[in-house]
Amino acid sequence: MGSFVTHLECARCGAMHDAGREQHLCSCGGPLLVRYDLERLKQAVGRENLAAREASLWRYREFLPVEEESAVISMGEGWTPVLPLARWGSRRGFSRLYLKDEGRNPTGTFKARGAAVGVSRARELGVREIAMPTAGNAGGAWSLYAARAGIRVHVAMPKDAPPGAVKECVIAGARVYLIDGLISDAGRFISRGISRHGWYDASTLKEPYRVEGKKTMGLELAEQFGWDLPDVVLYPCGGGVGLIGMWKAFEELEEVGWIGKRRPRLVAVQAEGCAPIVKAFQEGKAESEFFAGAHTVAGGIRVPKALGDFLVLRAIRDTGGAAVAVSDDEILTAMRELSEEEGLFICPEGAATLAGLLRLREAGLVGEDERIVLFNTGSGLKYTDLVSCDLSVLPADAQPE
Amino acid sequence: MGSFVTHLECARCGAMHDAGREQHLCSCGGPLLVRYDLERLKQAVGRENLAAREASLWRYREFLPVEEESAVISMGEGWTPVLPLARWGSRRGFSRLYLKDEGRNPTGTFKARGAAVGVSRARELGVREIAMPTAGNAGGAWSLYAARAGIRVHVAMPKDAPPGAVKECVIAGARVYLIDGLISDAGRFISRGISRHGWYDASTLKEPYRVEGKKTMGLELAEQFGWDLPDVVLYPCGGGVGLIGMWKAFEELEEVGWIGKRRPRLVAVQAEGCAPIVKAFQEGKAESEFFAGAHTVAGGIRVPKALGDFLVLRAIRDTGGAAVAVSDDEILTAMRELSEEEGLFICPEGAATLAGLLRLREAGLVGEDERIVLFNTGSGLKYTDLVSCDLSVLPADAQPE
Repeated sequence: MGSFVTHLECARCGAMHDAGREQHLCSCGGPLLVRYDLERLKQAVGRENLAAREASLWRYREFLPVEEESAVISMGEGWTPVLPLARWGSRRGFSRLYLKDEGRNPTGTFKARGAAVGVSRARELGVREIAMPTAGNAGGAWSLYAARAGIRVHVAMPKDAPPGAVKECVIAGARVYLIDGLISDAGRFISRGISRHGWYDASTLKEPYRVEGKKTMGLELAEQFGWDLPDVVLYPCGGGVGLIGMWKAFEELEEVGWIGKRRPRLVAVQAEGCAPIVKAFQEGKAESEFFAGAHTVAGGIRVPKALGDFLVLRAIRDTGGAAVAVSDDEILTAMRELSEEEGLFICPEGAATLAGLLRLREAGLVGEDERIVLFNTGSGLKYTDLVSCDLSVLPADAQPE
Repeated sequence: MGSFVTHLECARCGAMHDAGREQHLCSCGGPLLVRYDLERLKQAVGRENLAAREASLWRYREFLPVEEESAVISMGEGWTPVLPLARWGSRRGFSRLYLKDEGRNPTGTFKARGAAVGVSRARELGVREIAMPTAGNAGGAWSLYAARAGIRVHVAMPKDAPPGAVKECVIAGARVYLIDGLISDAGRFISRGISRHGWYDASTLKEPYRVEGKKTMGLELAEQFGWDLPDVVLYPCGGGVGLIGMWKAFEELEEVGWIGKRRPRLVAVQAEGCAPIVKAFQEGKAESEFFAGAHTVAGGIRVPKALGDFLVLRAIRDTGGAAVAVSDDEILTAMRELSEEEGLFICPEGAATLAGLLRLREAGLVGEDERIVLFNTGSGLKYTDLVSCDLSVLPADAQPE
């Protein structure tokens, strides 16, 4: 199979790093991005070769960093459906509204993409023990993929992490550490383990390959829209790896000539209770500040300061996009509306994009006839605790009214 | 689009019924099966036409009963991956073992297939209100698909139904009736509603189209194995609609000449606490008897007497298959093994097939080099309550040992 990777490049200072061995952050503290020989790649594969390939993100293997097919750890992740939101959209005046349903991935979330590529490459590099702090879904995904790869996992979580997420790590056989503290304390615990035991650091953007997995959301979007990208993409933004990945995907696709210069306007949606990117965007800053007292029902976007914030801000500005914050009430309302009107039980992070779309229109930032794609990052099945249900019990011989 | 349906046929007495209007059971009490003009179908489509089609069960539209494309209610169901179980299999001596992961469907279970086709056809027939008793996953699937179709749903459940399943119906906007009784009491409640209000009866096998949706599991199996069916298929058997559907699929595929006479041996796996089919199979009977005191952790196969039992028994006998029962302990062990060894968090019903496979081998009924497919009917995410988790909390400054 081989790969088209040439090197790793620091997204902050531009320094080059060897892709042939384990790498984490640049010495300047910046995250590393994978660079490919796109000229050679272009000769090796064309858009027309894709149609007959498998319904997973590995259909884009030339754009991925794994060298040997035998190293690929796959559970059929990716190639998620783009579903029209005909009823919800038309009732609110949007004629071409779509949801890309990442809840259909293995492990129920988009985290499977990063885990599949990240774990496959880690295995190829000979990694034996992976470690990461997590508030939930990433831990579950990496635990399960690592289990499939036969790699040991150490996951540290705040003690108030959702029980379902804890159990997903436990059943995968991961070593789970519940920490009496915040996600930052869990992070420090993992750092100590890395220093002490040489665990492989798989924290967000602290290894270069997770973003490559997320990138495939952008590749799929292009192919699923017939290589004519939609006008607007709304994405729930926590660590922002998905947005960074899609932005990178579009650059690479343009370089190989599969798409032109036009980009969707990328919109980062955050919760009012945790909106560091929105604040930085509004203030015209290149980086975000730590958002104190972060709180929202959408745990996946409760990230007070993201390592890749500067890349997210660059991506949304470069594409003429925006950043909007929505309330928890709006999120919960959108979750209910989407299941009642479209039959889609989505996660609160995904629901935030519906609320964000309404905000965008209020601000005059989106046209009703534009082709708009909302990203649902996970299945609602992981969030049944957010569904309130107060039913009385009927006697066995009750008559239906 | 049009359809190739000619009529409905009673699976018990053979009587013919008009497929152009709402139909439920035959006057003899037998379930109705959809029949197609397979001669004409054969002229219209060939195996080679499928490759370029969408990654959903609608790639087989000629084998489905929906007439107009505009009537199709889809969330991209079907075309689920067939995943090798290399580690679990090789450790236990099986060299060609696969899992078809139905947990990847919308709503997290194989029930989405029946709901997609059943709801689409009901909508085409002008149905306004659908009703069914359910112990869980079927209710969730039909509630969400009906929501997408704009059809009202009435679901009756025993008051001790899993809260997650109840919530899935509730968030879809279904009218949910919690009944102080068993699933049979819920069934009687729905029957009274049908008589009184004319609701459309969508109970298992009481309308002809759910089985057509399930049938696509068999069509996919044939295509995914290159039209050379595997040797053995193990399927967790509750109502048995999936087995009946696959058996029907193979018949139709042979009639159009896409496969030959050879069939996989179909194996029904049940729980020791509810094994009516296993009992009837062992006793050489054509039908099962009501299994009193039914109990198992695998709620989806807790069906004491299935309407289609005679068809299931016919299918497993016709194909030289078998019926085996496994214990709840074996089920829970297999669930844990599969996530630890393969990264797949599956449902207990799916896990029953792994336990069933070990039983089959003990009985000398399966060869280690045979191509064996296990069906996982749902995502483990719906069953986190079955994962035990007893972790102590570490102080924020703990050292990783």
